[in-house]
Amino acid sequence: MAQLARSAAACVIVGQAQREAAAARGAAIVCADPYLAYARLTQWWAAQLRRPAPAGVHPSAVVEPGARVHATACVGPLAHVAAGARIGAGAVVGAQSHVGEDAELGEHTRLAPRVVLGRGCRIGARGLLHSGVVIGADGFGFAPTNEAAGSRWEKIEQLGAVRIGDDVEIGANSCVDRGALEDTVLEDGVKLDNLVQIGHNVRVGAHSAFAGCVGVAGSARIGRHCTAGGGAIILGHLELVDHVHLSAATVVSRSILKPGLYSGAFPFDDNASWEKNAATLRQLHGLRERLRALERKTAP
Amino acid sequence: MAQLARSAAACVIVGQAQREAAAARGAAIVCADPYLAYARLTQWWAAQLRRPAPAGVHPSAVVEPGARVHATACVGPLAHVAAGARIGAGAVVGAQSHVGEDAELGEHTRLAPRVVLGRGCRIGARGLLHSGVVIGADGFGFAPTNEAAGSRWEKIEQLGAVRIGDDVEIGANSCVDRGALEDTVLEDGVKLDNLVQIGHNVRVGAHSAFAGCVGVAGSARIGRHCTAGGGAIILGHLELVDHVHLSAATVVSRSILKPGLYSGAFPFDDNASWEKNAATLRQLHGLRERLRALERKTAP
Amino acid sequence: MAQLARSAAACVIVGQAQREAAAARGAAIVCADPYLAYARLTQWWAAQLRRPAPAGVHPSAVVEPGARVHATACVGPLAHVAAGARIGAGAVVGAQSHVGEDAELGEHTRLAPRVVLGRGCRIGARGLLHSGVVIGADGFGFAPTNEAAGSRWEKIEQLGAVRIGDDVEIGANSCVDRGALEDTVLEDGVKLDNLVQIGHNVRVGAHSAFAGCVGVAGSARIGRHCTAGGGAIILGHLELVDHVHLSAATVVSRSILKPGLYSGAFPFDDNASWEKNAATLRQLHGLRERLRALERKTAP
Repeated sequence: MAQLARSAAACVIVGQAQREAAAARGAAIVCADPYLAYARLTQWWAAQLRRPAPAGVHPSAVVEPGARVHATACVGPLAHVAAGARIGAGAVVGAQSHVGEDAELGEHTRLAPRVVLGRGCRIGARGLLHSGVVIGADGFGFAPTNEAAGSRWEKIEQLGAVRIGDDVEIGANSCVDRGALEDTVLEDGVKLDNLVQIGHNVRVGAHSAFAGCVGVAGSARIGRHCTAGGGAIILGHLELVDHVHLSAATVVSRSILKPGLYSGAFPFDDNASWEKNAATLRQLHGLRERLRALERKTAP
Repeated sequence: MAQLARSAAACVIVGQAQREAAAARGAAIVCADPYLAYARLTQWWAAQLRRPAPAGVHPSAVVEPGARVHATACVGPLAHVAAGARIGAGAVVGAQSHVGEDAELGEHTRLAPRVVLGRGCRIGARGLLHSGVVIGADGFGFAPTNEAAGSRWEKIEQLGAVRIGDDVEIGANSCVDRGALEDTVLEDGVKLDNLVQIGHNVRVGAHSAFAGCVGVAGSARIGRHCTAGGGAIILGHLELVDHVHLSAATVVSRSILKPGLYSGAFPFDDNASWEKNAATLRQLHGLRERLRALERKTAP
Repeated sequence: MAQLARSAAACVIVGQAQREAAAARGAAIVCADPYLAYARLTQWWAAQLRRPAPAGVHPSAVVEPGARVHATACVGPLAHVAAGARIGAGAVVGAQSHVGEDAELGEHTRLAPRVVLGRGCRIGARGLLHSGVVIGADGFGFAPTNEAAGSRWEKIEQLGAVRIGDDVEIGANSCVDRGALEDTVLEDGVKLDNLVQIGHNVRVGAHSAFAGCVGVAGSARIGRHCTAGGGAIILGHLELVDHVHLSAATVVSRSILKPGLYSGAFPFDDNASWEKNAATLRQLHGLRERLRALERKTAP
């Protein structure tokens, strides 16, 4: 309410509860869900401001024989579309982006400049991949040779791909690796922020959203409507059921089978306090033993 | 001093305190601040070694009509400069870099190969963006639809841009997102290392420096002359005053209103010790209660 | 064994111990190391499936005068090879990749689309750099000016390069910075996953492997056959001997001179439990003092 009174905006979007107060100060849009209305207003605004990508292939782009580009799609300057790739109606391949062999871009999906959609990877309709995204790099798979002379790593070729649903958005410089045998999957409506890492054979359920710098190791299965705060890490081969929420920087080291909010960041402190507490933490198990001994000693 | 004696260098740079010892072993440059003198010597050396970027637009680059490129600027091979963009005197657009519509590159600022400076984003003079940097991807903003059938995410179009001051350097594959309504701002002299994430509407004060893999969530306000060690995370909507320093991997979960050094990494240990201490940590609050009970019991 | 019985595979790869059980259900390949055999089978399979990169320079690529490209090498669409660069026999420069001045690509080493191998950097034979990799951005080095008016950062030009051995694989959007004076080094057989950061003058020993989002700060020296789980951070100027293994998210703040497994993640919990334990953790040192006091009090 104080914010409302201070605002110099010509018009405000408010909920029913603020109707009176808003009307008292001037023009107002009153609606059930003001934040959602704000989102839709930004979409309207963006549509006014931005020139739509022109249909057609820029003369500097390289579209290989055997690629199919819809007549209403846009392939930007210096983009590369490899053989067998399919670019859907109204889709945009941004400047300097690469669409690999047999990859598929759904209708009205946009690649910002300098994106990679790797060989055989598919994304559905109305998606948005920001600059620097890499879909379909090899998953991290190696078998140790266990030689007497010291082990080397033998590459496990990654024979799967990445399959992405509709209405998915992926932030700048994020990576989704191709699967080892089967595909890595992002279901409909998934939203990933920047610098997120999704390992091979991960499955992320519909409408889950991960903030920046999140890492998900190979073969983890994440449910629907999950969220993860910045820098959270989910280890490999774990399961998270639907509606699991992770605070920033939480390291998930075993499966979470119950919906809810989970946390695990170390509470920061001024350096001197942290040093004392951290040093004591290294003796914590011993402290518990000493406490137990005391308890026994003072027991009646 | 021991290092000095062991050095095989033909000439050394030392402070006043080492003047005698240095002179005893051979040629020496004596100055008030040897590390700063070393920095300036590397600059001189680099200027000898490296060919300056040639002025002009490479024939393979695409410069759209309506872009303005200064006659002394260099646009490298396969670079793309969109309509309305401005490239200042002596500036360099590296090979395969993209400068979006209406973006501005200040005098003598250099984009390494394969950088994205997004639509409407501006950087001042003498900047350096390393390969893979993405300036101006959309901030991570979505409104939940709160439908009975299960919530989806409605995109909040990001209508702001990124505004970067003079003398800013940003490391490889780092990202600075555009603002939701107002701009994301990096003030003069900011230095970001590689793989750093700066969320929408963040403001980083002048001469602050963040090491690799730091993440700053949306709308955080960082003061001047702050530093953050590698992997530190700053949550959204927080304020850090000037001269706040964060140790590596610190997770900042509330505002810091007092200058100083703050820390928060879990002290690592051999796995067996860590396991014992980590298990006990999950009972820590209970241990405190038991300790309190004992204190009450043994009170006179 | 239960997995074996349930498998619908036409043929399985098993060790000697599963020979009987496997034979009972159908075709089987029995070998000493089934995982390694699986790795080699995927390699055979990939060779059947994938078209080899065609020898020669794509007409849209830019190869500067003075670059040497072996007749059997492939330079892909819209790639850029700068003056003085050398591309070895059978090597592949992927679409839109950049090979800087005087950089060297060893025999049969492949750059995926949109990789940067910076000026003067070298990689040996049979390497694989995934999309978005940046080799040879400047290390993060600045000297404070210590001015009365408030310190600025003076750039330390990074005069070294990056030297990578044979059989090295680096994941998408990972970065290896060039050295300040000497080179940053990755020895033979090193494997890095996606979004890994290697600071300037780091040395990573042969056959060490780091999972996604690992960060290694400047001048750290990592031994041979080390591994690091996702999100681990190694601070600068430290030494890790051979055969050191780090669990995910471990922050290594001092040298590790004994082989073994080291850990340091905060154990995650449901948010309410974490809050209580985290709050108590900030008083941990005080708790220890209180425990000590109690011990003294109850001592006989």
